[in-house]
Amino acid sequence: MSPKITVELLRHLRQAMKNSKYITEPIQAYIVPSGDAHQSEYIAPCDCRHEFICGFNGSAGTAIVTEQHAALWTDGRYFLQASQQMDNNWTLMKMGLKETPSQEEWLISVLPENSKVGVDPWIIAADQWKNMSKALSNAGHSLVAVQDNLIDAIWEDRPPRPSTKLIDLGLKYNGLTWQDKVTALRGKMAERKVSWFVVTALDEIAWLFNLRGSDIEYNPVFFAYAIIGISNIKLFVDSKRLLHPAVQEHLELDSPSKPELTIQCFPYESVYTELQAVCAALAPKEKMWICDKASCALTRVIPKAHRSAIPYTPLCLAKAVKNPTEIQGMKMAHIKDAVALCELFAWLEKEIPKGTVTEISVADKAEELRSQQKDFVGLSFPTISSVGPNGAIIHYRPLPETNRTLSLNEVYLIDSGAQYLDGTTDVTRTVHFGTPSDYEKECFTYVLKGHIAVSAAVFPNGTKGHLLDSFARASLWDSGLDYLHGTGHGVGCFLNVHEGPCGISYKTFADEPLEAGMIVSDEPGYYEDGSFGIRLENVVLVIPAKTKYNYRNRGSLTFEPLTLVPIQLKMINTDLLTQKERDWVNDYHRKCREAVGAELERQGRKVALDWLIRETLPILNK
Amino acid sequence: MSPKITVELLRHLRQAMKNSKYITEPIQAYIVPSGDAHQSEYIAPCDCRHEFICGFNGSAGTAIVTEQHAALWTDGRYFLQASQQMDNNWTLMKMGLKETPSQEEWLISVLPENSKVGVDPWIIAADQWKNMSKALSNAGHSLVAVQDNLIDAIWEDRPPRPSTKLIDLGLKYNGLTWQDKVTALRGKMAERKVSWFVVTALDEIAWLFNLRGSDIEYNPVFFAYAIIGISNIKLFVDSKRLLHPAVQEHLELDSPSKPELTIQCFPYESVYTELQAVCAALAPKEKMWICDKASCALTRVIPKAHRSAIPYTPLCLAKAVKNPTEIQGMKMAHIKDAVALCELFAWLEKEIPKGTVTEISVADKAEELRSQQKDFVGLSFPTISSVGPNGAIIHYRPLPETNRTLSLNEVYLIDSGAQYLDGTTDVTRTVHFGTPSDYEKECFTYVLKGHIAVSAAVFPNGTKGHLLDSFARASLWDSGLDYLHGTGHGVGCFLNVHEGPCGISYKTFADEPLEAGMIVSDEPGYYEDGSFGIRLENVVLVIPAKTKYNYRNRGSLTFEPLTLVPIQLKMINTDLLTQKERDWVNDYHRKCREAVGAELERQGRKVALDWLIRETLPILNK
Repeated sequence: MSPKITVELLRHLRQAMKNSKYITEPIQAYIVPSGDAHQSEYIAPCDCRHEFICGFNGSAGTAIVTEQHAALWTDGRYFLQASQQMDNNWTLMKMGLKETPSQEEWLISVLPENSKVGVDPWIIAADQWKNMSKALSNAGHSLVAVQDNLIDAIWEDRPPRPSTKLIDLGLKYNGLTWQDKVTALRGKMAERKVSWFVVTALDEIAWLFNLRGSDIEYNPVFFAYAIIGISNIKLFVDSKRLLHPAVQEHLELDSPSKPELTIQCFPYESVYTELQAVCAALAPKEKMWICDKASCALTRVIPKAHRSAIPYTPLCLAKAVKNPTEIQGMKMAHIKDAVALCELFAWLEKEIPKGTVTEISVADKAEELRSQQKDFVGLSFPTISSVGPNGAIIHYRPLPETNRTLSLNEVYLIDSGAQYLDGTTDVTRTVHFGTPSDYEKECFTYVLKGHIAVSAAVFPNGTKGHLLDSFARASLWDSGLDYLHGTGHGVGCFLNVHEGPCGISYKTFADEPLEAGMIVSDEPGYYEDGSFGIRLENVVLVIPAKTKYNYRNRGSLTFEPLTLVPIQLKMINTDLLTQKERDWVNDYHRKCREAVGAELERQGRKVALDWLIRETLPILNK
Repeated sequence: MSPKITVELLRHLRQAMKNSKYITEPIQAYIVPSGDAHQSEYIAPCDCRHEFICGFNGSAGTAIVTEQHAALWTDGRYFLQASQQMDNNWTLMKMGLKETPSQEEWLISVLPENSKVGVDPWIIAADQWKNMSKALSNAGHSLVAVQDNLIDAIWEDRPPRPSTKLIDLGLKYNGLTWQDKVTALRGKMAERKVSWFVVTALDEIAWLFNLRGSDIEYNPVFFAYAIIGISNIKLFVDSKRLLHPAVQEHLELDSPSKPELTIQCFPYESVYTELQAVCAALAPKEKMWICDKASCALTRVIPKAHRSAIPYTPLCLAKAVKNPTEIQGMKMAHIKDAVALCELFAWLEKEIPKGTVTEISVADKAEELRSQQKDFVGLSFPTISSVGPNGAIIHYRPLPETNRTLSLNEVYLIDSGAQYLDGTTDVTRTVHFGTPSDYEKECFTYVLKGHIAVSAAVFPNGTKGHLLDSFARASLWDSGLDYLHGTGHGVGCFLNVHEGPCGISYKTFADEPLEAGMIVSDEPGYYEDGSFGIRLENVVLVIPAKTKYNYRNRGSLTFEPLTLVPIQLKMINTDLLTQKERDWVNDYHRKCREAVGAELERQGRKVALDWLIRETLPILNK
């Protein structure tokens, strides 16, 4: 892949930074955070501003441009990708390495005295604004809100904001009506004496109203805001989307069942003024919730005395604990997904020797096979299909110029997933179609041991996921190896493939405790730049664990894998496994064979079934 | 033990809370934090204010008294002890349990509207003040600084502040002169463009000036403050302590070698006014460091524009990484300490059957045996000597009314340590002098497995200790067990037995990464209220680890035990150990035998040597 040429773009941006059309006083630096006005991880094309200015198209990155410098901060998943996509006008700032300055430190080191640093207040989260502003003002600079987005100002062919059709999933998939969800939410608000809640995260709005859209690729969400009061529901969404009779009926727009469940609809853009109106009418002690990750622009509408900024909203928490219908849906989605992947791997074994299968063609084939499954909607993220050295690019996405051919000589890593009406999947398998080297097997086995250590972990109720992160690393650490990303993330149910408030990562302390019904990924890896990448990912459900004792009646939890795709035995050095680990693998494979085998049989997919049976033979004891 | 009767005291305190002699307006609640004006963990008798008001004498606790209620917050180590020491005027708030409200939540729930909550600004840390003040004002209350301490006001026979003799350790023990330490500190200040640093932690002052005192039992520190400038050293200490010629010479008070190493001495109490004077003379951009855990009173002297509040001071960090002289000293101290404990255990085996050995007599005997060792100064904390159910009181201290006799039928736990001129020790052993039950052995073995998992852990350079905490718990968790305290704390070198900025605990995210040369404890446990307590504690040194690979040249670390006291084999169910764990135990015991055996031999302690040899026989393989 060749880097984006950014000389002219940077010249334009630097001109805009001095242009009184946009700003009253010139700014010496401009921050381009990733995300949109909803702080989404995946964004619509109209919001891909860091990609527009620097070329790097990974999901996480912050660009900062000063009069002399341009730098991009991203994390370990993207170091290689970012270095390949950016030209030499840009400095790559590798987050998480000791020598890498923070954005604040870097700004302070390069800026002249008394500098002004600009940022779009809609794109920066309130908590980020606060930290950045404090650090800059401590050093004699100031952070200023630039109302006109300067990237948009120089972006000539910027695409319009999407407004796709809304779909009502129905109780069969949701398990709860939106009315029940609003009522439960109001219960939480009443408990905390909060009378309003400003909902800004797109997946929270989609979940609350039991609606889905397709405004953002891979994420079945739609651009909207909501303001929920104890007796009001204000929904801000492009009004033409509400004209569809099914949506009208679903939201009871014409005939609400109860007055307090009447939805008032407003145009998407009017959230700012409407929030101002709500705030103007607040009684002296009234409290309003807003997520501390909501945009600075919207957060600052709420007077401080009324504002209660919370790290995780009650919707985020409620959404994370899946109800029985959602759990059943997720299980079914994962079985269908496994059917597609068994087909894929059986097909690959046959096709690879012909020398015509490439990273892109596998990704396409995987999508085709998934699309044959019931209730398939689309992919849940861009497929990472990577051969040999490309596997070391953690969030690699094959492009025509990087596309490699699969062979019998290199490790192949595929991290992919789909959206089905009944659930979201995310699975990574690392395989070899010839004979893996001893070293590749050794590394794979360490990763597998880490995967099992998390998946089989038993831990007390109330444990936060970050406390499990080191379990995934211990076997790698023992040999001096590691990986520079977290171990797991929350997974939505026909929603975002990455969601809070739980996860398994050394990077946070603020995650919420794991609870039965939460769903996270378990995905340790190992990456060697220029050689290969290994990752082994299952989506797992938090379930109660039976233990011999029960200290202080706290109860224990463990994980049940929802992903049911065989782990390639050829990649395992079974001598490195303990008996407990062998048993885990054999038990896992037995479950794959039972659940996925039955579905393959039902679907009459004989070749894939034979492949599954062969790939799930037990490891024999020494 | 019988609880303290607090009816009258609470009545006096509540009167003081309305007395215009102390406050302009009545306060509705008064907070009594633990600690002193230096936020010390161990405190002098004159500072034992929470004990005075509620009777609980554990090292960590915050008492809050309102017009109607009185409550004490403490952590899992002290639940049992606090419930026994407090009368029914007090509610015990068990920190760390989900149902326990925070101090702020509780205050908000019990206070009438617009209440004033008072606290002594010298005793509350600046960061605690900030959090508390914010939470209260969000709820319509306010936190107010009460200059006269209300406990002192009602405390008739309050002891005076101690002013003990200062001792100069000499280079043989310190490894570095105080002049070198000041110069290194100024280097750190220059790096960060900071021109002043207010030193408030007593152990930092003792370490910086290579002086020790005995103002606080168990901690060889002395009451002092220091303000270090790029060319100034201001020391605030009771002036008569500086009259001793050795101290005068050590500090070069009469003839400083360099002008910038001239120490200006001031009375202890004048730190407030002198800091005001320094602040008044600051140039516009000058920065002053102060720890964010320093007192609110002193912190607020520094104007916000000049104040740089830091979680860990450069002295805290420098002190944590022991120099070669300190490491050598710590090793020697631990060998001497092991000699005393081998003697103790050999003596116990002989004496216990007589039925005359009690918790208190063992503690006394242990102190006597330690005091026979070279350079012994005193204990490093009150000895926890506990039989059977007393062992479940995590920070138990035997008192005449609780004192139990050691027998052949109950588990015995001893957690003890000493201060030697060359180092500080802290060791816990849990033993049985008869035949432990299968269940006791099972629990002990899980704790041992956790201890080994941490001690033998290999992890990358830059890893924070909290990431290792779960390793200590995994084997307990597997069986539904756990313990409600952290796994390890930093240990000073002839300084406080608990020190920052590193440790091994799930409770923090803000610890500094482990580095070679740091010293921490490794002390998992298991406690069953009413039955027994188990804890296994070694002090361990962070050392570089040799690994098969070296990912990104980061290098790896592991631990070397400094504590060399045999682990009782009788308590181990060896069937539950892996081969790696057996090897660890055998290797550890071989080291105990070599290092401590040689010293026992040198000291001619034959009985203890025989005991050591017997207790360090290898576990045979299955």
